[in-house]
Amino acid sequence: MAPRKIIIDTDPGQDDAFAILFALGSPAELDVAGITTVGGNVPLALTSKNALKVVELAGRPDVPVHAGCPAPMVRKLITAEYVHGETGLDGADLPEPVTRLQDEHAVNYMVRTIMDAPEGELTVCTLGPMTNLAMAMTMEPRIVPRLREVVLMGGGFFQGGNATPAAEFNIFVDPHAAHKVFDSGVPVTMAGIDCTYTALMTPEWLDRLRATGSRAAIEAANLADFFRQYGTHKFETPARPIHDACVTGYLLAPQIYEQRQCAVTVDIVSPETIGMTVVDWWHVTGRRKNCNVLRRIDPAPFFELMLERISALP
Amino acid sequence: MAPRKIIIDTDPGQDDAFAILFALGSPAELDVAGITTVGGNVPLALTSKNALKVVELAGRPDVPVHAGCPAPMVRKLITAEYVHGETGLDGADLPEPVTRLQDEHAVNYMVRTIMDAPEGELTVCTLGPMTNLAMAMTMEPRIVPRLREVVLMGGGFFQGGNATPAAEFNIFVDPHAAHKVFDSGVPVTMAGIDCTYTALMTPEWLDRLRATGSRAAIEAANLADFFRQYGTHKFETPARPIHDACVTGYLLAPQIYEQRQCAVTVDIVSPETIGMTVVDWWHVTGRRKNCNVLRRIDPAPFFELMLERISALP
Amino acid sequence: MAPRKIIIDTDPGQDDAFAILFALGSPAELDVAGITTVGGNVPLALTSKNALKVVELAGRPDVPVHAGCPAPMVRKLITAEYVHGETGLDGADLPEPVTRLQDEHAVNYMVRTIMDAPEGELTVCTLGPMTNLAMAMTMEPRIVPRLREVVLMGGGFFQGGNATPAAEFNIFVDPHAAHKVFDSGVPVTMAGIDCTYTALMTPEWLDRLRATGSRAAIEAANLADFFRQYGTHKFETPARPIHDACVTGYLLAPQIYEQRQCAVTVDIVSPETIGMTVVDWWHVTGRRKNCNVLRRIDPAPFFELMLERISALP
Amino acid sequence: MAPRKIIIDTDPGQDDAFAILFALGSPAELDVAGITTVGGNVPLALTSKNALKVVELAGRPDVPVHAGCPAPMVRKLITAEYVHGETGLDGADLPEPVTRLQDEHAVNYMVRTIMDAPEGELTVCTLGPMTNLAMAMTMEPRIVPRLREVVLMGGGFFQGGNATPAAEFNIFVDPHAAHKVFDSGVPVTMAGIDCTYTALMTPEWLDRLRATGSRAAIEAANLADFFRQYGTHKFETPARPIHDACVTGYLLAPQIYEQRQCAVTVDIVSPETIGMTVVDWWHVTGRRKNCNVLRRIDPAPFFELMLERISALP
Repeated sequence: MAPRKIIIDTDPGQDDAFAILFALGSPAELDVAGITTVGGNVPLALTSKNALKVVELAGRPDVPVHAGCPAPMVRKLITAEYVHGETGLDGADLPEPVTRLQDEHAVNYMVRTIMDAPEGELTVCTLGPMTNLAMAMTMEPRIVPRLREVVLMGGGFFQGGNATPAAEFNIFVDPHAAHKVFDSGVPVTMAGIDCTYTALMTPEWLDRLRATGSRAAIEAANLADFFRQYGTHKFETPARPIHDACVTGYLLAPQIYEQRQCAVTVDIVSPETIGMTVVDWWHVTGRRKNCNVLRRIDPAPFFELMLERISALP
Repeated sequence: MAPRKIIIDTDPGQDDAFAILFALGSPAELDVAGITTVGGNVPLALTSKNALKVVELAGRPDVPVHAGCPAPMVRKLITAEYVHGETGLDGADLPEPVTRLQDEHAVNYMVRTIMDAPEGELTVCTLGPMTNLAMAMTMEPRIVPRLREVVLMGGGFFQGGNATPAAEFNIFVDPHAAHKVFDSGVPVTMAGIDCTYTALMTPEWLDRLRATGSRAAIEAANLADFFRQYGTHKFETPARPIHDACVTGYLLAPQIYEQRQCAVTVDIVSPETIGMTVVDWWHVTGRRKNCNVLRRIDPAPFFELMLERISALP
Repeated sequence: MAPRKIIIDTDPGQDDAFAILFALGSPAELDVAGITTVGGNVPLALTSKNALKVVELAGRPDVPVHAGCPAPMVRKLITAEYVHGETGLDGADLPEPVTRLQDEHAVNYMVRTIMDAPEGELTVCTLGPMTNLAMAMTMEPRIVPRLREVVLMGGGFFQGGNATPAAEFNIFVDPHAAHKVFDSGVPVTMAGIDCTYTALMTPEWLDRLRATGSRAAIEAANLADFFRQYGTHKFETPARPIHDACVTGYLLAPQIYEQRQCAVTVDIVSPETIGMTVVDWWHVTGRRKNCNVLRRIDPAPFFELMLERISALP
Repeated sequence: MAPRKIIIDTDPGQDDAFAILFALGSPAELDVAGITTVGGNVPLALTSKNALKVVELAGRPDVPVHAGCPAPMVRKLITAEYVHGETGLDGADLPEPVTRLQDEHAVNYMVRTIMDAPEGELTVCTLGPMTNLAMAMTMEPRIVPRLREVVLMGGGFFQGGNATPAAEFNIFVDPHAAHKVFDSGVPVTMAGIDCTYTALMTPEWLDRLRATGSRAAIEAANLADFFRQYGTHKFETPARPIHDACVTGYLLAPQIYEQRQCAVTVDIVSPETIGMTVVDWWHVTGRRKNCNVLRRIDPAPFFELMLERISALP
C-alpha cells in the first residue's frame, strides 16, 4: 500500500518538531507532501525558520515548506514563549537553515494541492492554530469534500484547558478557524489534551532516545529537555506530554488510541469559554457526530514506535 | 459543640430526599433550621409537597418548609421528570403529607432567618437551582457577609455536564442565580458531578440499608432503586451517584473529600456553555479563589456514615 | 371613571421627581397606590429618601414609600451621579423628610398589592432599573397576568443609547431584569430615549413653571435647572429631555404619542450591546409583538399638561 | 491630479451595478484597477458573471474581474434573492458576458496589487460582505498600512438594520470579516443605511436617466425599477435608496456627505445583535475613532452627479 499523503500544518514548537520527525521517520507509512507554517507558539517568521531547521535535521530538505498566516482570522495573535522559549525550539542548537521557504503562500499551497490530488487522498494534520486550513476552506470550499481527514492536536474537554481554564492553546489562539473546520463537514480527528496527557514522556525514555546516537534523536531529546520544564506545578512526576507527536502516532497506530465519535463544537462567544472544544461525549445534543475524539493512548507502544522512527533518521 | 445550623434549599428529587434524611438523621452535628423549596427537578408544587413528605418520613414534621420561587430568575423553567419520574419521588410510596407549608415565602424566610441569626452562624445548602438564595441576596445583600458558607450540589468541570455537554442540571436551570452566588463574595463549597460521581451507590449497599429495617431506610432504598434506572448508558456497573447526599456528607465529614480552593465562574453567555461552572483548577486566571471545589469522595466512609444516619431515623 | 391605579417604581433622580409630581398632581386620572424605590441613579438609601422628599413636596405624605432592591439581579450596581449630582436631587433644597419608609420590602409590597387587587387593575410604572418588578415576577409569577400594563422609561433604539453606544442607562443597569419583564408576557409600553428626546424642556417653559408660584413648581424648576446641565455636548439648544415624566404623560394623554406595537428584546449577552432594547420596528423577526414602543411626543400639549398638573400641587 | 486608484469588491446586485457604472463613468477621478467578487446578494457564480456583465455594459471589458470567496469566513452564506431577484440583476436584460474571469483568486489579487502599489495609493471599496478584504488582511497583514482607505457600504446605527432589527445585510452576512477590517487599524469610511436612506432615488430621476438615451443609463434605470419593488412597506413614497452607489458618490464628492469620526465595532457575539455596527456617536467609550461614519447625503448634487456620469457611458 502506498504511504498516506499528508500536509503538516505547524508552528514549531518542540513538540511540533517531534511530530514532524516522527512522520519523516516513517516514510513507508507517511508521505509528507509539504509543511505549512502558521503564527502560534512563536511568530510566523520563527515557526517558518524552525520548520526548515526540522526538515534539515531529518535530512529531508526536499520537503517543501510554505509560510502561511502570521495571525488568526479574527483575533490578535497570542504566542507562548513561556512554554517554548524565545525561539520556539529552545533546548536544541540547530544550525540556521540553508534551504528556503517556498514562494507560494501556505493557504494557496493547500488549496492547489488538495484540488489537484485525487479526491479523498490528502490528510491535513494541524499542530497549531487552525488558521491556514480554515482560510483555505474559505478561499475554496471545494477542498472540503476532497480531504480524507483532518487530524489535529488541539482542544480537550475532560482536562479543561491549558491557555484558559476552559480552552487549549491551539484552539484558543484562533477559535474562529477551529470552529470553521469542525463545522465544515470534513472528517475530523482530535488529539486534545485529554489524550496527550495520557502519554507522558519520561526521562528514562529520553535517555534511551539519546542513546540511539542519531543526531535527530539527540537533538529531539535536547528539545524535550527544555520543553519538560514547563508545567512543573501540574505534574507530580518528571514525565511530560509531547502533544503534537500524538497526531503522528494516531496516523501510524490508531489502534493504540481510545476513540469515540462525538459532536464537537468550538465556542466563539463567551469570554469564559471562547476556544473551548465542547464535546458531546454522551450524545445528549442529537447533533451530527463530526469528530473522532481521541481520549487515551497506550503509552508503551506509542513511545516504542516513536523511538524507533526518530532514531531511524540520520 | 452546638450542631451546625443549616437551611436546606431543595427540589426533591430522590437524591434530595437522601440528603435531607442524611441531615435529619444527624442531629448532633446538624440543626436543620428550615427547608426551602424551588422549582427544579419537578415543578414547585411537587417539590414543596415532596419536602413535606420527606420531613414526615424522617419523623420531623416540626421542621418548617417554605415554598420559594417556581421558576428561575431570567430563563424559563426546565424540569427533569426523565430522571426523577412524574412526582419527583417515584419509587417510594409516601403518604400525602399532613403538615402544611409555611405562609412565608422561602426568599423572605431566608432573608429574615439570616439577618436574625448571629453573624457567621447559618449555612445554606442548595440541592437544586440556586434561585431562592440568589433572590435573597438581591432582596437583601446584607445577608451575604452574615452567612457562614454556601454548600451546593451542582456544577462540575472534569466530567463535563449532564444537562448539556458542558452544564450540570442545577446550574443550567438557573445559571444567573448561580452566577450571582458565586460572584457574591460568600464562601462557596461546590459538590459538582466531578465529586458526586466518585461515590457510587451499589445494590449491595442498598440491600444493607433496606435490611436495617427502619421505614426511612426502606423508603430511601426504594427511591434509590427508581433513581438508579437513569443513566444506564453512562455506567458499566449498576452503581450510581446519589448527588445531593454529597452535600450532607461534606458537612459531616469534610475530611473524606479531596478539595481545592479555586476561582469558579458560571457562564451566562454562550449557548454552548451557558450554566457551565468554569473552574480555574490550575490558577491561571489570577482571579480570587471564591470556591472550595470538591473533587473526590472516599466512598467507603461516606456510605457507612449515610447508612448509620438514615437507619437511625424511625 | 375611577382614576387608574398605579405603582411608581423609581430611583429619584430629578426627572423621576417630575414624573411623580406630574402623577400626584393628576388625582382625577391617576391613583398612586404606592411608590417603590430601587438603586439606580444614586444608591438605594438616597433614592428612598428622595422619594419621601418628593411625596412631601407634593403634599402627599400619605403615599406609602417602600424601599426595594439596592442592586441589580445579576450585575453590580452602576450609578449616575455625573447626571444627577451626589444626592440625586441636586438643584433643589428639599428638607429632610419627616415621613418614614414602610417596613415592607418593595418586592413584597408589589406582590401583595398586585395579588390582592382585582385582575387587570394595577399598572406598574418603572422609572429606573426594573429590578423590583422582575424580582416580584420571579417571587410570584402569578402577578404577571394580573397586571394591566407595565409602562417604563428606558431603552431606545433609533437614538442609540446613553450609557453605552447601544444601551440606555435604566436598562443597562439591570439588563436581566428588563429582559425578564419584556419576556414575561405582560403588556409593556416603553418610553425610550427615542421618545423622550422629542419632548425637550425649554428655559421658557421652566420660567412659566416657576412663575406659577407654587412651591412644588418652583422646586421642580430648580431640579430641572440642575438636570439641564448634563448633556450639553449633545444639544445645540438649551432645551433638554425630562425622560421619566414621559411615562406620566403617556398615562394621562396617550393620544399625543406616536406608538407602534413591536417585538422588543433586551440583549443580555454581548459586551458591546448588553442592555440594548432591540426593537423589531419593521416586523422582520416574526416574533410576538410584546411592546408598545413610544416613538414621538407632541411636545406642546405634553408641556402644557405637565405645567398645569405640577402647578396644581401646593 | 491622477485619478484615485480603487479596487471594487462587490456582489452585484442592482445597486452594486449603479456603484460600478458610476465609478467607471468617472475616469478623470477614479481609476478602477480591478473588480473582485464575493458571495452575498446572490451566490458567487452569479455575482462574478454579473460583474462581467456590468463592465461590458460600461464598455470597459478591460477591467479585470477576479472571483473571490463564495462564502463567509465563519458562518454559512445567506443570500438576498428576495431583494435582487434570482439573478441578482433582475430588471435588466444584459447579454451573457464574453469576457472571462481572471484566473487569480480575488484575495490573492488584492494582496498582490496592494503590496505592489506605492504605499497609501490603493483604496478598497466593498459593496458586499467584507470577506475578501478580511481574508487578504489575514493572508498578508502587511497590506493594512499600505491601504489609503477602505470605503464600504454596510452597517448602520440610527436606522437599525435591514437583515435583522439590529444588523444590515452586508455586515450580517460576514460579521467576522467586518469585525476584522474595522479592528485592523485601516482608515474606514462607512456608508451605512443611515446614510444611504437619505438619498432616495425617485421615479422622476429615473425618467431623466433613461431619457439620456445611453444604453448604460437605460439598463441602469431598468435595474432600478426592479430594485425599487423591495421595501414598499417601509416607504411612504415611491423613492428608494440605491445603497452601494453612495460609496462612489463619497469618493467623488465627499463634501456632500455629513461625516463624523467615531469608534465603531461590529458585534460578533449576541444572537440579537450579531452583525450590528455599534457606533460610538457621542464618544462615550474612549476608544480610538476608527471609522468615518457617513450620516447624511445632500441628495440633489448626488443624483445630478450620478446622472451625469452614468449617462456618459456608452
